[in-house]
Amino acid sequence: MEVFSLRTVREMAFRAHLKVCFGDIDNAGIVYYPRFLHYFHVALEEFFSNELGVEYATVLGKHRIAFPTVHLQVDFRRRLRFGDHIEVEVEVVSIGSTSVTWGYRTRVSGQEDVIVAEGHNVTVCMNMDRYEKSDIPEWLREALESYRNSCK
Amino acid sequence: MEVFSLRTVREMAFRAHLKVCFGDIDNAGIVYYPRFLHYFHVALEEFFSNELGVEYATVLGKHRIAFPTVHLQVDFRRRLRFGDHIEVEVEVVSIGSTSVTWGYRTRVSGQEDVIVAEGHNVTVCMNMDRYEKSDIPEWLREALESYRNSCK
Amino acid sequence: MEVFSLRTVREMAFRAHLKVCFGDIDNAGIVYYPRFLHYFHVALEEFFSNELGVEYATVLGKHRIAFPTVHLQVDFRRRLRFGDHIEVEVEVVSIGSTSVTWGYRTRVSGQEDVIVAEGHNVTVCMNMDRYEKSDIPEWLREALESYRNSCK
Amino acid sequence: MEVFSLRTVREMAFRAHLKVCFGDIDNAGIVYYPRFLHYFHVALEEFFSNELGVEYATVLGKHRIAFPTVHLQVDFRRRLRFGDHIEVEVEVVSIGSTSVTWGYRTRVSGQEDVIVAEGHNVTVCMNMDRYEKSDIPEWLREALESYRNSCK
Repeated sequence: MEVFSLRTVREMAFRAHLKVCFGDIDNAGIVYYPRFLHYFHVALEEFFSNELGVEYATVLGKHRIAFPTVHLQVDFRRRLRFGDHIEVEVEVVSIGSTSVTWGYRTRVSGQEDVIVAEGHNVTVCMNMDRYEKSDIPEWLREALESYRNSCK
Repeated sequence: MEVFSLRTVREMAFRAHLKVCFGDIDNAGIVYYPRFLHYFHVALEEFFSNELGVEYATVLGKHRIAFPTVHLQVDFRRRLRFGDHIEVEVEVVSIGSTSVTWGYRTRVSGQEDVIVAEGHNVTVCMNMDRYEKSDIPEWLREALESYRNSCK
Repeated sequence: MEVFSLRTVREMAFRAHLKVCFGDIDNAGIVYYPRFLHYFHVALEEFFSNELGVEYATVLGKHRIAFPTVHLQVDFRRRLRFGDHIEVEVEVVSIGSTSVTWGYRTRVSGQEDVIVAEGHNVTVCMNMDRYEKSDIPEWLREALESYRNSCK
Repeated sequence: MEVFSLRTVREMAFRAHLKVCFGDIDNAGIVYYPRFLHYFHVALEEFFSNELGVEYATVLGKHRIAFPTVHLQVDFRRRLRFGDHIEVEVEVVSIGSTSVTWGYRTRVSGQEDVIVAEGHNVTVCMNMDRYEKSDIPEWLREALESYRNSCK
């Protein structure tokens, strides 16, 4: 007898769809590299809304936790120009007791095989009232693990 | 009999000295206009430190008030390029019971007669804990008036 | 005899749909006011794509013109918080030989009667190669007038 | 016989002195992490002016080369708050034929032993007209090596 896993496996990881705007461009005519990190953050915010079912604004305002970055690593392989439509894929790389490692892969829409920028950051769960490291709440851990499992 | 005013009259208003950086430039090769407003704000922060004797960070953190903008008006007369050294002059135009109107004049250093951008904004004193309009504290009013009088 | 205009009259002006992101918030916990001007610019970029049928990136890169701001006026009536969904309406207020005046009205989605921020800016058509004032090209003037007429 | 090197050895590497401004703060009340990368870039711009004797604006505008980032790695160890005076140290880690690796160490002024953020990026010398990888010009290589040797 064949047994099928009941776990839903998604076809691909979450992607935030963004567009490079006029003000993202620097004096060399390409995206100013700190703006890539902003794209990563916006993608993370969209990931919370779309995949975890909670606004990151609510995580901050109601649950009183935030996820400051303690380590960051990025490879930039292609330049981006004004008007480019991009997709930032969000991966949950690992979940510790107080930290989450996120992965990001940026592509220009329609150019599936070309990675424009690829990186990850380690974030630490911080209590917003005491500015101290804090355990990841159980509801969030479950949501993160569920997403991660669905991507395998 | 000759009477000399004891009031010190300064030669000129406070100026923040800034430099246009790489990331301020947009895809048209000039300063992205929202960045001018950032320059105005940074100049205001420097004005607090240098002229009012209190850090704006302290005004927020300790005195628990902030000055959000409710009206803004700017004329942009020259473009700025990467590397330009600029001076943003700060004027206290008027002081109401809950509002302050600030004036800003931007020049490229050494080009005294050319105004690059000129504007003003009306800000309202806001209580940071209740997010409500609040009277300007007496110590701040006095400091603002003292500065304003010295510029006449 | 009744004559019906053949001109299509739209129900409402173009609106760009944006979301206030984490990095737009300042130390007073509300949107940093220069970011509003960024919202206006992004709305303008979207307006070109959606209503004029040309990407603003193409206007710059191919047609070699840009629209730097020479005058700006804004009233900020409500504060915005992280996570707010906003709509920035774009109006073509007037079209001169070398200038365009744009109007912007920002609302929180679903709160139709509350204007969060309202402003306009005068922009000048600039030749990107010579950085000189330039006549608005005929194709663009027609597109702008057609949009403006459709909004009446 | 004692031989003294004629090479001047400086006491410490170049540091750009910056101040965390109001708009750098995010909704968690600390510096938005992409702004750190902006600090690194501003420090690099100041490094060109102060140590290499050429404005980065001139490198772009006249020499027609830029240094886009292809790899970035950062550790964030302390958070920064509005009003913090910081010093960003710039190191020339290595010089290849077409690439330069830069190191950055951020401290709060007066707290010499505490590294707030530490990172490096690999940049590639890019011809601004062709957007292609290019050899580092000899005059720049010499200036970079001279600085690097002075720091040993």
